[in-house]
Amino acid sequence: MNRDELLSRLKPEMAKIDEAMAEDLAAIVNPTLREIIHHGIFNGGKRVRPLLTLLAANLCGAKIDHDAYRLAMTFEYLHAASLLHDDVIDHAEQRRGKASANTLWGNSNVILAGDYLHTRAMTIAGTVGSPEILAVIGQATASMVEAEFLQAKTVAEIDRSMDNYFAVLSGKTGALISSPCEVGALFAGADEKQRRALHDYGRDLGLAFQVVDDLLDYQGDPAKTGKAVGNDFQEGKMTLPLLHALAEADAVDRDLLLSLLAATPEKRQGELATAHAIITATNGFTHARAKAESLVEAACAALTVFPDNDAKKMLLGLGQYVLTRQK
Amino acid sequence: MNRDELLSRLKPEMAKIDEAMAEDLAAIVNPTLREIIHHGIFNGGKRVRPLLTLLAANLCGAKIDHDAYRLAMTFEYLHAASLLHDDVIDHAEQRRGKASANTLWGNSNVILAGDYLHTRAMTIAGTVGSPEILAVIGQATASMVEAEFLQAKTVAEIDRSMDNYFAVLSGKTGALISSPCEVGALFAGADEKQRRALHDYGRDLGLAFQVVDDLLDYQGDPAKTGKAVGNDFQEGKMTLPLLHALAEADAVDRDLLLSLLAATPEKRQGELATAHAIITATNGFTHARAKAESLVEAACAALTVFPDNDAKKMLLGLGQYVLTRQK
Repeated sequence: MNRDELLSRLKPEMAKIDEAMAEDLAAIVNPTLREIIHHGIFNGGKRVRPLLTLLAANLCGAKIDHDAYRLAMTFEYLHAASLLHDDVIDHAEQRRGKASANTLWGNSNVILAGDYLHTRAMTIAGTVGSPEILAVIGQATASMVEAEFLQAKTVAEIDRSMDNYFAVLSGKTGALISSPCEVGALFAGADEKQRRALHDYGRDLGLAFQVVDDLLDYQGDPAKTGKAVGNDFQEGKMTLPLLHALAEADAVDRDLLLSLLAATPEKRQGELATAHAIITATNGFTHARAKAESLVEAACAALTVFPDNDAKKMLLGLGQYVLTRQK
Repeated sequence: MNRDELLSRLKPEMAKIDEAMAEDLAAIVNPTLREIIHHGIFNGGKRVRPLLTLLAANLCGAKIDHDAYRLAMTFEYLHAASLLHDDVIDHAEQRRGKASANTLWGNSNVILAGDYLHTRAMTIAGTVGSPEILAVIGQATASMVEAEFLQAKTVAEIDRSMDNYFAVLSGKTGALISSPCEVGALFAGADEKQRRALHDYGRDLGLAFQVVDDLLDYQGDPAKTGKAVGNDFQEGKMTLPLLHALAEADAVDRDLLLSLLAATPEKRQGELATAHAIITATNGFTHARAKAESLVEAACAALTVFPDNDAKKMLLGLGQYVLTRQK
């Protein structure tokens, strides 16, 4: 299924997810709290995570009723809660080209709004869903926090281990992509084989998604991504293109990269072209692209246990979408 | 039951709660994350919230097994998570006389550590507990966030409404005290009458606890409370002694108080003695003390549906403890 057909098929579902969220959020009493949360939620996001839950549930034969939309939307809540907290943590001034919530309402209100969404998501997951579904989400969120700490450590120590790089990605992916897929299967009462297949699909799709993120950070068009090029290098993040370059470059170039990683962010920002050139020369970008492609291939292969139907076609289509996205 | 006997009876239970937490937190992989959470949890707290869950469960006839301790400890997690986030929000440098976690590890790590504890608490509540227990906690946490927003509004608008003051207290109390009591009843499979009695006990005890907090803020001994006197007035918080004074003072004093509330925190800090004198003259402190006493009386009266036993004696003893505490 191509990108345009996929999007047109998913659009009505996105609207229903938005309706379920708007209905739920109407319970908020304080107008400022409601504004912050609406700003965090209704910001033009693509609802990828809830859609994965719905498609996975559908693939496993579930009836997509109001409960399914409510359960699916919890992933949008968790995502929005973590973006709200991230923007406070990073002192971000913008989010998707608009003023960030922390800029508009201050850190304290935004931390509290994130806590509200997080609580609401967990409560719905464990009531509309089940204790088993709650446990999957709880584990995924805990792993995401662990991954943030591991990532900070890899930056501080200029850690060149591929294992740690993929451990960070796996931790973040759990909450991002694989748990929405797994929860869809659980909601449908899928058997263990189906549940595992959807977990594996989500894991590999999520890893691919993040490898493409790493590439866009170096190669993306700022007009499309809404982010400056080279953020990751400036922050000293050990991402796949850079790790590949460090492993493959000759001693002179490797030492140059290492000295830049030990320098200040300002120094690194000024030397982005140098890093870019070394990564290109060592085929770091080509390597990362190939890795993303093989991950999407593995994700799609995990779905062979399911019969060919529309939900499956859309999940396969999302794999291609991850590879071709430009933002 | 007097204070010393109560504390000596509860001490072994506090130790078991701590054991359950230490066992659970051993699952944390990252050493920095573990340190922050240990700093937040094992800081000399009295475990009041988990003890309420255990006593309520015991009062309703539950066997206090390992699951009971695990469920009870979730309230310590939620409490610690909210203190971690509060200290980031308030840029607090100290917590219980020690350097605050945000001072030691920075805001971003501490926000994430709070998120970790929050997730863990909700997950255990919905798995070791039940969907119904999770819903009680989810509602309480949402109400607490709403209460924070309402409180900010009462400060910004110099809102003199007693209704809003008690609405803020109720919102905060849900998560603080009444939901641990109610969850204890639910864990024990209590009937609706018992559940409601424990909810009411917790609500009134929690309100009294906070009214005493308001008094200690003006009248406490900083050497015991670990906080400077007059924080609330400096921040413009509309608490019971001040609201009573605003309602009862003559026009001159009332306008003086209102002009101070409209001034800067620095100005208010310098005029604390003025506020203190007006509150004393209008019997604001006496009124608040009487209110706390009548709330504790109501809390204890709610327990008449239960037979007299040790758990009940301890819950009644906690009521007296709330009134006599000096920190």
